[in-house]
Amino acid sequence: MTMRAIVVPFLFCLVFVALGTKESELKRCKHQCKTLQQMPEYQEEKCNEMCEKLYHSEKQKEEEISSFFPYKGREEEGEVERENNPYVFDEHHFITGVETQHGRVRALPKFTERSKLLKGIENYRFEILEANPKTFVVPNHWDADAVLFVAQGRGTLSLVRKGKRNSFNIERGDIIRVCAGTTAYLINRDNNENLRIHKLLIPVSTPGQFQHFFGPGGRENPESFYSAFSSEILEAALNTRRDKLQRLLGQEREGVIIKASEEQIRVMSKHEEGGIWPFGGESKGSVNIYRQRPVQSNQYGQFYEVDDSHYKQLGDLDISLNLANITQGGMLGPIYSSRSTNIAVVVDGEGYFEMACPHLASESGRQQGSEEREPRIGLSYQKVSSKLRRGMVLAIPAGHPFVAVASTNQNLQIFGFNINARDNEIVPLAGRNNVMSQLEREALELGFGLPAREVEQIFRSQQEEFFFQGPGGQWSGRAAA
Amino acid sequence: MTMRAIVVPFLFCLVFVALGTKESELKRCKHQCKTLQQMPEYQEEKCNEMCEKLYHSEKQKEEEISSFFPYKGREEEGEVERENNPYVFDEHHFITGVETQHGRVRALPKFTERSKLLKGIENYRFEILEANPKTFVVPNHWDADAVLFVAQGRGTLSLVRKGKRNSFNIERGDIIRVCAGTTAYLINRDNNENLRIHKLLIPVSTPGQFQHFFGPGGRENPESFYSAFSSEILEAALNTRRDKLQRLLGQEREGVIIKASEEQIRVMSKHEEGGIWPFGGESKGSVNIYRQRPVQSNQYGQFYEVDDSHYKQLGDLDISLNLANITQGGMLGPIYSSRSTNIAVVVDGEGYFEMACPHLASESGRQQGSEEREPRIGLSYQKVSSKLRRGMVLAIPAGHPFVAVASTNQNLQIFGFNINARDNEIVPLAGRNNVMSQLEREALELGFGLPAREVEQIFRSQQEEFFFQGPGGQWSGRAAA
Amino acid sequence: MTMRAIVVPFLFCLVFVALGTKESELKRCKHQCKTLQQMPEYQEEKCNEMCEKLYHSEKQKEEEISSFFPYKGREEEGEVERENNPYVFDEHHFITGVETQHGRVRALPKFTERSKLLKGIENYRFEILEANPKTFVVPNHWDADAVLFVAQGRGTLSLVRKGKRNSFNIERGDIIRVCAGTTAYLINRDNNENLRIHKLLIPVSTPGQFQHFFGPGGRENPESFYSAFSSEILEAALNTRRDKLQRLLGQEREGVIIKASEEQIRVMSKHEEGGIWPFGGESKGSVNIYRQRPVQSNQYGQFYEVDDSHYKQLGDLDISLNLANITQGGMLGPIYSSRSTNIAVVVDGEGYFEMACPHLASESGRQQGSEEREPRIGLSYQKVSSKLRRGMVLAIPAGHPFVAVASTNQNLQIFGFNINARDNEIVPLAGRNNVMSQLEREALELGFGLPAREVEQIFRSQQEEFFFQGPGGQWSGRAAA
Repeated sequence: MTMRAIVVPFLFCLVFVALGTKESELKRCKHQCKTLQQMPEYQEEKCNEMCEKLYHSEKQKEEEISSFFPYKGREEEGEVERENNPYVFDEHHFITGVETQHGRVRALPKFTERSKLLKGIENYRFEILEANPKTFVVPNHWDADAVLFVAQGRGTLSLVRKGKRNSFNIERGDIIRVCAGTTAYLINRDNNENLRIHKLLIPVSTPGQFQHFFGPGGRENPESFYSAFSSEILEAALNTRRDKLQRLLGQEREGVIIKASEEQIRVMSKHEEGGIWPFGGESKGSVNIYRQRPVQSNQYGQFYEVDDSHYKQLGDLDISLNLANITQGGMLGPIYSSRSTNIAVVVDGEGYFEMACPHLASESGRQQGSEEREPRIGLSYQKVSSKLRRGMVLAIPAGHPFVAVASTNQNLQIFGFNINARDNEIVPLAGRNNVMSQLEREALELGFGLPAREVEQIFRSQQEEFFFQGPGGQWSGRAAA
Repeated sequence: MTMRAIVVPFLFCLVFVALGTKESELKRCKHQCKTLQQMPEYQEEKCNEMCEKLYHSEKQKEEEISSFFPYKGREEEGEVERENNPYVFDEHHFITGVETQHGRVRALPKFTERSKLLKGIENYRFEILEANPKTFVVPNHWDADAVLFVAQGRGTLSLVRKGKRNSFNIERGDIIRVCAGTTAYLINRDNNENLRIHKLLIPVSTPGQFQHFFGPGGRENPESFYSAFSSEILEAALNTRRDKLQRLLGQEREGVIIKASEEQIRVMSKHEEGGIWPFGGESKGSVNIYRQRPVQSNQYGQFYEVDDSHYKQLGDLDISLNLANITQGGMLGPIYSSRSTNIAVVVDGEGYFEMACPHLASESGRQQGSEEREPRIGLSYQKVSSKLRRGMVLAIPAGHPFVAVASTNQNLQIFGFNINARDNEIVPLAGRNNVMSQLEREALELGFGLPAREVEQIFRSQQEEFFFQGPGGQWSGRAAA
Repeated sequence: MTMRAIVVPFLFCLVFVALGTKESELKRCKHQCKTLQQMPEYQEEKCNEMCEKLYHSEKQKEEEISSFFPYKGREEEGEVERENNPYVFDEHHFITGVETQHGRVRALPKFTERSKLLKGIENYRFEILEANPKTFVVPNHWDADAVLFVAQGRGTLSLVRKGKRNSFNIERGDIIRVCAGTTAYLINRDNNENLRIHKLLIPVSTPGQFQHFFGPGGRENPESFYSAFSSEILEAALNTRRDKLQRLLGQEREGVIIKASEEQIRVMSKHEEGGIWPFGGESKGSVNIYRQRPVQSNQYGQFYEVDDSHYKQLGDLDISLNLANITQGGMLGPIYSSRSTNIAVVVDGEGYFEMACPHLASESGRQQGSEEREPRIGLSYQKVSSKLRRGMVLAIPAGHPFVAVASTNQNLQIFGFNINARDNEIVPLAGRNNVMSQLEREALELGFGLPAREVEQIFRSQQEEFFFQGPGGQWSGRAAA
């Protein structure tokens, strides 16, 4: 509503000076500035600046004005392309947190900055760390719980908690929970491959916001948080003279991800694979999703899951994780999750995604200027679709039917964090055991308006489960039965 | 604050053009539009539209501007009538979701669209389904947990979850929990009586928002969510040729609530009453509130409760349910709930409701234009009152003392969903065991400023508990002792 | 964003009339009003009023416009003084709820009215009750759970819940949980000392808002909530004639905190110290924090903790409590809490506080007019600092390193409520077992960019733990090693 709060009186002012053109807001605004030039003491620059600000906010808040202006950018009726739907995130949606020659950390903004429809996951954040071979990520802690997934590479992770350090080697497929406030550091011990880690963060202090706190550091890049204290405080606390502290904290540092020597890497890599977890008793510090038995598997794909029964550290977070490996030319779904929202990342390969969305349908169905705030019962669905390629992120809300299709030349791997995982059920909408095949004949007949036999035939034609042969090259028509 | 954000600059613009009349906002606004006609290129229509928008938002957000304009509509000092208090919902507050010749589904908007005072129940939604005799409600799932109460009629409910269908007959008084994502459908199997179901919905995806997802359906009314997918995707997933799918999904359907044949009804009704629940082990699929032993009962009324000790499916929702049957001429209370907010629906009869509210008192106590954001300790209370009739909904917050009085010619039945139910205590303010009778004599004396004996006499004069003889016809004066 | 919503069009209007001076918003605004005088029917008074409103809201919402105007009031680079940081609350930040000659109740506004950075504790409220010797606090209940800490004095607290009254004597150091909806009253039974109670409130009805409900009372000061009901309702419910009720409820009362006679005090004080809790079985009604074994103790201070293992009534609230007694000339920290936010009150003494804050650093680092909404990874920290004196409140978020230093002439006692207490770890950043001493030599070397030996020497120079000798008089330079 806030955007509208800007727009209404702004437009009113415009109306007042008797201009009501159909140009885009920004253009209209700037044009308006020109018109005002004849006024005494008028500053056109200031006016343009105001327009820019207004226009900038508009973009950030576009969904908030959807009741005011009809949904923009819909290219064809009934389809919302990637750029215009709030469920798909590409490279350019990320904020770069750190970028050096040795690696980078990128985060998605709060999901609600993209759309109010993602309010249910507002307090979760997603971050990707990528470190070059033979590098070191400086120790730091976060005011957030975190679940890490190693999407690529081999490293060594060290965690300091409750006065103990635990270091263990990690590799592709590993899942690690890091409690809020734990001091963590990392090496990429591989000679050639980048280490890529996906992080789901659940802030404990300010909902939807988290910070990295660097103890090691200097005057800058990163600053050590010790530097924020007065010299006399530090002298007293560390029982150390000011000149020594100045030597420690006065330097400009080389960044958060830095090059480590062969020798340093060698020493810090000497840890047992997946070593024993010292924190929660006998349970392990990490679990590897590829080493689980797939819960679904056929020639078209495999589906792996990790929940608190596999890795008890997940327990209190109400999060589970899954990985779909869709064989080239295969597809997953249509399915929906009964209560989880899935934040899914394309780990490898490329393909295609489609989802049925009642929310966008009701948005786009509105007339311009219509004030209807809440749609009627969703009697129609918008197709949300997107090409998929490595690094893209999907937010798939509970209840929304979707499919993912692998390209014909490469497997498509999608890793997902399930939020609200407890008692979640993945409901199949096609193939063996699909939900329609559970309905009574009378219900099918009444629901679809066709003879039950005809409906049943359709919902029993697919013998596979969960993963199917995809629609083939170029996602174009292929008739199977 | 948003509304104010609109109002301040808007008014400023008005001030600027030098009008400051005392007419209502809308009138003033439109009048303003007229005044502007002499400007070149001015479009009066656009201006009026702007006014309408402004005025429309104002109504929706009236409580947000209460610090700006004094509380409107208070007819007499110390009393907030139905239309002007945010705790009472009548027919016209509902949004119609579906309306056909065979039935309708209506929902209350998000409670916070009515008032910020209801922020505590913002993420709960209330819906009423009403189906005519011998009708069928098309299978669909919701992205919300739901608790259903059968307020009237007899039907058969089918739920598909975890690959199994469970159908069971339901009747007046039945309570059923439906997990998010469960595919549900329903028949009204009665020949004469409407089936009326009250639903409390707890969204799992977007807080305060939910959608119905229809699998069965066609091109429209309802659309099947299958229709949102590309043809080639559906061909591959269902292993079925496009022409057959076109026959299935290409039709315009007859609506969400449709007529069913005698034979269809007969087949779908063949289920045992309250049959065995297959989902949670041995526990039953539903529970009937009228078959519970009343927790309070006398000649003036009965009070029934169902919580997770009666129906374990409620456990994780922190919800309990109650039903007050107030005998004609009787009254319930004054009582308050220690921690629950009650969403109560008048199931039958008519009567009267009064509640003491410190929030509205502090609102109305403010001076116009006063910027005091937070009231002092509530040292005064506003009476919130309303006539009650079938279908009306009350939101009764924790801690707020209230009474409900039945008319003298019919019992008044009020069914309630208790949100935040765990450890809730209903605290009696009159009658046997009222809270004042627990205070020490010195505390009564100091608190009321009268001799303890005199105060005690008053709080011990009523021998009944919970339900009392009401104030009599026309709620007018009747002196008992 | 809302503030900006006001400012943008407002400024636009100003721009429109061609004024863009650099005066403060208020002055500019009022000046503007003058300029408009020549317009017909213009009301300068109304215009000024508008300015005042605008300016007033600006102050309340200053953090919301920080992206629009650069952070105001920062006196020197790198330091945020008390008045300009949102983590420190002084006397003038409190709202006075009740103020009589016999005592007062003061509350902090919702934390988010101060800053969005405190959103994590938005739904918690803090209140201080202070009652003069030999006084009575009138019975009332709240729509909030509460944890009480007796900061000073000796009293008797009575709680009515589930139809039973429990009265017990309380004294300095006692902690008591009061469930929402419990009727509570209180005497200060001391002849000389004020009774001072700190209350943390967790609203159960409207998030972040609570009200006191007074049963005892009259027509005013306080009003009894009984008065809000119609006479005929009360007659029927209490079975008492209108004239008697008028005598009971028609009086103007003397206030919420009133003088009690020697005799009244004597009778109401006759309770066993810390008597048996009748509500939760065998557990006690209160616990005294001073009687716990300190978890940290040396010549520079003691640290006490109470959690649900000491006092099981805290269990469901996820709250723990602590008390730091810092010896004169000593200091506590630097430490941080891994997941709790601490609401800390200075109970006695005076001193100094410093905290490293990445949030404010990123705020102040922004360029004026910069639209960057989310900072990059926090690579720098702002020092938040404040003098401390009795009655001041600190909000210390999880993950943020801080120190507290006692003055050289008096012990400094700080009592804290920990929100989000489960699994919280207090992490030491100096002294024995500090987190840096757990890092590998290679990690220290790479992180600090100095030879490991040199870094280790610094982090091993302080032999004490948790509490240290402070920096000495005037917090000025003192070199220890």
